[in-house]
Amino acid sequence: MTTHAVTLQPSNATQVVHTGALLSDVLRAAGVDGALPCGGQGRCGRCAVRVESGSVRRRSALRLSAEDLAAGYALACQTVVEGDAVIVVPKQETVERQLTTDRAASAFTLPFAYNPATDQTIQVVPLTLPQPTLTDSIDDVARLQRGLAAVGVAPVKIPLSVLRALGSQLREAEWQVAAIVETDNWNHHTPRLLGLIPQSAISNQQSALLYGVAIDIGTTTVSVRLIDLEHGVMIDGASEYNGQIARGEDVISRIISAGRGENGAGLEEMRSLVLGTINTLLSRLLQRQHLKAEDVVKAVVVGNPTMIHLFLGVTPASIRLAPFVPVVNHPQPITAAEAGLAIHPQAGVDCLPGVGAYVGADITAGALAVGLQSTDALTLFIDVGTNGEIVLGNREWLVSCACSAGPAFEGAGVVDGMRATRGAIEEVWINSATHEPTLRVIGDVAPRGICGSGLIALLAELFITGEMDRGGNLKLDLGSPRVRVGAHGPEYVVAWASETSTGRDIVLTKVDVDNLMRAKAAIYAGFTVLAQSVGLELEAVERFLIGGSFGQYINIEKAVQIGLLPDLPWERFEFLGNTAVKGAALALLSRSARTEVADIASRMTYLELSADNTFYDAFTNALFLPHTDLGCFPSVARLINGG
Amino acid sequence: MTTHAVTLQPSNATQVVHTGALLSDVLRAAGVDGALPCGGQGRCGRCAVRVESGSVRRRSALRLSAEDLAAGYALACQTVVEGDAVIVVPKQETVERQLTTDRAASAFTLPFAYNPATDQTIQVVPLTLPQPTLTDSIDDVARLQRGLAAVGVAPVKIPLSVLRALGSQLREAEWQVAAIVETDNWNHHTPRLLGLIPQSAISNQQSALLYGVAIDIGTTTVSVRLIDLEHGVMIDGASEYNGQIARGEDVISRIISAGRGENGAGLEEMRSLVLGTINTLLSRLLQRQHLKAEDVVKAVVVGNPTMIHLFLGVTPASIRLAPFVPVVNHPQPITAAEAGLAIHPQAGVDCLPGVGAYVGADITAGALAVGLQSTDALTLFIDVGTNGEIVLGNREWLVSCACSAGPAFEGAGVVDGMRATRGAIEEVWINSATHEPTLRVIGDVAPRGICGSGLIALLAELFITGEMDRGGNLKLDLGSPRVRVGAHGPEYVVAWASETSTGRDIVLTKVDVDNLMRAKAAIYAGFTVLAQSVGLELEAVERFLIGGSFGQYINIEKAVQIGLLPDLPWERFEFLGNTAVKGAALALLSRSARTEVADIASRMTYLELSADNTFYDAFTNALFLPHTDLGCFPSVARLINGG
Repeated sequence: MTTHAVTLQPSNATQVVHTGALLSDVLRAAGVDGALPCGGQGRCGRCAVRVESGSVRRRSALRLSAEDLAAGYALACQTVVEGDAVIVVPKQETVERQLTTDRAASAFTLPFAYNPATDQTIQVVPLTLPQPTLTDSIDDVARLQRGLAAVGVAPVKIPLSVLRALGSQLREAEWQVAAIVETDNWNHHTPRLLGLIPQSAISNQQSALLYGVAIDIGTTTVSVRLIDLEHGVMIDGASEYNGQIARGEDVISRIISAGRGENGAGLEEMRSLVLGTINTLLSRLLQRQHLKAEDVVKAVVVGNPTMIHLFLGVTPASIRLAPFVPVVNHPQPITAAEAGLAIHPQAGVDCLPGVGAYVGADITAGALAVGLQSTDALTLFIDVGTNGEIVLGNREWLVSCACSAGPAFEGAGVVDGMRATRGAIEEVWINSATHEPTLRVIGDVAPRGICGSGLIALLAELFITGEMDRGGNLKLDLGSPRVRVGAHGPEYVVAWASETSTGRDIVLTKVDVDNLMRAKAAIYAGFTVLAQSVGLELEAVERFLIGGSFGQYINIEKAVQIGLLPDLPWERFEFLGNTAVKGAALALLSRSARTEVADIASRMTYLELSADNTFYDAFTNALFLPHTDLGCFPSVARLINGG
Repeated sequence: MTTHAVTLQPSNATQVVHTGALLSDVLRAAGVDGALPCGGQGRCGRCAVRVESGSVRRRSALRLSAEDLAAGYALACQTVVEGDAVIVVPKQETVERQLTTDRAASAFTLPFAYNPATDQTIQVVPLTLPQPTLTDSIDDVARLQRGLAAVGVAPVKIPLSVLRALGSQLREAEWQVAAIVETDNWNHHTPRLLGLIPQSAISNQQSALLYGVAIDIGTTTVSVRLIDLEHGVMIDGASEYNGQIARGEDVISRIISAGRGENGAGLEEMRSLVLGTINTLLSRLLQRQHLKAEDVVKAVVVGNPTMIHLFLGVTPASIRLAPFVPVVNHPQPITAAEAGLAIHPQAGVDCLPGVGAYVGADITAGALAVGLQSTDALTLFIDVGTNGEIVLGNREWLVSCACSAGPAFEGAGVVDGMRATRGAIEEVWINSATHEPTLRVIGDVAPRGICGSGLIALLAELFITGEMDRGGNLKLDLGSPRVRVGAHGPEYVVAWASETSTGRDIVLTKVDVDNLMRAKAAIYAGFTVLAQSVGLELEAVERFLIGGSFGQYINIEKAVQIGLLPDLPWERFEFLGNTAVKGAALALLSRSARTEVADIASRMTYLELSADNTFYDAFTNALFLPHTDLGCFPSVARLINGG
């Protein structure tokens, strides 16, 4: 039998092995800590290495995309040596991040070169005004307007609160000021003066002068991004559960809560709860960036129609009742003072346009962020939140619907669920032989709970490695202490109390599983019905774009395994993170993006699922792992049949 | 000696008298209660009768105008019988009101035929909207805008507070609504939705649907007029002392008060004080007319620049310091909610344009009300308030100034001063022989104090009948108990405690006299300097228009006698009451009037008196009764010289 020299990088150790040796055995022999959480079945992809040179044979490349293969990646547990070879063993973290099936939520980059002078509606206009004299004694406002006119700015509207400070600001700055002017807005074309700052403040500035915020009000999660309006970059972000959760988990229960009490008390409570969340996030961002509330001069807000109604204090009652009509799809711009946002009181607050009762500005903004309006490819875009909102189409046509998934994928409504923050289990692999899990925890700390992406992975692994049947029932007869009956019925122990930061076991209960099953079934049913409505098969979808705030990463393979996503080639999927807040940021930074999102909203057809009987049938069919009809999921069928 | 039959009407009694009999003696003989408060000197005009037919000779007609004479009036104490005659003795009240020298403040009448459809910026647009269905499921706002567009109304701006009520209002009215739309405003041309009312409310209405308020914020007196926007009529009015009086009597002391305290506390206090006064008046009017705050959908506000700054919460500090520059002469429209006015929160609040530091919208509105912008005659218009603001000019040119008179003519800063309401002494005659006064009291009740017109009359009578010298010193040696030394020095007792409603003597003290002297001197000095500034003599003034809230009537003859007004033929004078609030009402009712007032403001030249040394000289010269130079007042000279 021929022997071969296998050199491992970066250690430069060489192992001499026989032809046909499994690369994972070579690594173990060399003392390289090769984690095989899936038990060497080629599923988890954690043993991926890069073949720098030499001859190897890949027996399976289940976890690897065409791009990965082109880059030379191979799964050590599925690859045999056939000649001398140089193998690069990446750091574990690098592996996890690089594999394209992990499809990281791309960082925020503008799809255009930002030029504040033309893209931005907020302008800083430096003015050196002549001091008043007995012979030039026009009033301060006239003097300011005269100065603005001299540099081509049309007469500005001066809000009362700005007028109140004007006289002393002009004098304190000795008439050397910079006017912060909102040159235009959606449907308000008179320029508006937001305030004056001394010119000295501009020359002394250490960082950008003006900021904006993009706010995504999710039913479960509220996300805020702080954006530098001078350079057009997102400089910080924060997310938190929506304070309204205490009043119900989904939009329907929120609408009911808003209707409680006398004289709109319920509505006002809901408004102040979500405002509380937003303002807490704003204050956290401002503190972290050493900014004042007045530095934030613009806000763009997105959310589903119910969230937008509650944010504005407009009753959402009609959204819930046939014929499902919101009071307003596209609210007119208001000020931060009117909205109650703790930023510059005169900052314009634009709620982007929505489409129908359950398809709101989060979707139109998401569609903008993913570029639906300019793609030729048949694209399906889903925003997985408490509602799964789905858009199908391309630059020619767009059709949308919303299906009630519940908050499970955001880590709410699940015993040990949590948001995708430090301490959240975001990825899980289970060894099919031992039933023991391997976890990836955000921040590499002791786990505290499981976020959305972790829940998807966990459900998939339990099903694929056999701890759970296709109906979602845990198998109590495996002889593993991990599968047991707890206070809430059958459960799987993801982490023992001794390993967690809470000192309690982290578990997934049967009730949690049922919530997750309903959530994924609702979303899949949405895909089905939406495709049917335009007479297309899901296979025809060329690009499958996934947005959502349920984690920074989503394992698309596992999402297919549980039947959340259809069984399409992985290359068609792309996970884009919080597309809603990205779209809001784009609208904040670009005049044309704001026009585009309005165009998207006006062109998008809304399909009301509650007016469609086929939805319930599709939902029921999807209440299995991955689906009643296994034929729809050939890759999953192959896997569970050991193919 | 020939005898004649004099028949008196309406009693029809006949007296037979000799040629040359004094008519007042004939009346007394016939038992007609002919009051002669001036002692039969032909000064007070209270014994005026109308000569229906027959032959009489008027020895003097001092109190009678050409119009009075043409109408047959004669003063009984100055008229002798020369043949048979029929004499009509009018009721005392009729005499007082009819004599044109009393020149009643004319009631409010529009100088044009009011057509709300074209003159008014507030329109009621009835709309019958189709109910939403699954196939016509556009949002409520889009449905409303679609309905408005169908009747030619451009897309309306919907304020947040209106949006909040929209959904339930539409449904409660079963989509049969009327939209209250502000179609335009000074510089804001997007129509604005103020609210919705059910169509049933229109058909059921008993009175007008919508109202406006004209508000004049005087330094001393605040006046509000309630106006029916449907018929263009003023339906009620109310006035009250400005609550800021407690913080100083003139604008300078108000500016100082506004500058006190930390973080604008003084300014905010001044704002809330005047708002308190205005809102009290509004509430009084609404209650009296059985209206709700929401029925008042428009407000026009006038006042001097300091008052407008304080009303808006804008610091007036720069008005007081050279070069005397206000922060704003013409504030942009705001809403009642922003202003803090207790009317419809979305009502537009227009502060009319002012001209300079001390010539404000009260004057431009007054100029509008008296028609300065369209007269060919050289006209002098004065608004007598705490400041005396004066405009000289015609349709070609306008020059203005302001002189600090103090609040004396508004009844403030005078021991027994009061506003011109029930119980105020508004006219005084003194019998030169007995030094006893005769009083006319508003409401014909026991007197409570003296209003502005009463103070002018009192000062004039004391001077003309000899209780006071030209320097304003009371003569203590007359032997009359009316002239005495009181707690505050020399004083004249106008009414004894037993006659008053307060149970205390009503007096005019030397301090009061000095205040009145300074007030009238400041105003006369203003006339002088303003006329000089354009190289004209006061005699050239063809029309002399007097506005002010110091009483419903002003005795112009007596105002001349004290040197408040120049000694011109009485026909040239006209007293017009509160011209500021009338101008505000015009602007409220007429689009073109609003354009005109802006035009007046832009054309008016402002003369800053504190930048002019001649003012102080003119003021000093005017600190006598009627003036240092008696030659300027020939009619008064004749009177005191018994001419």
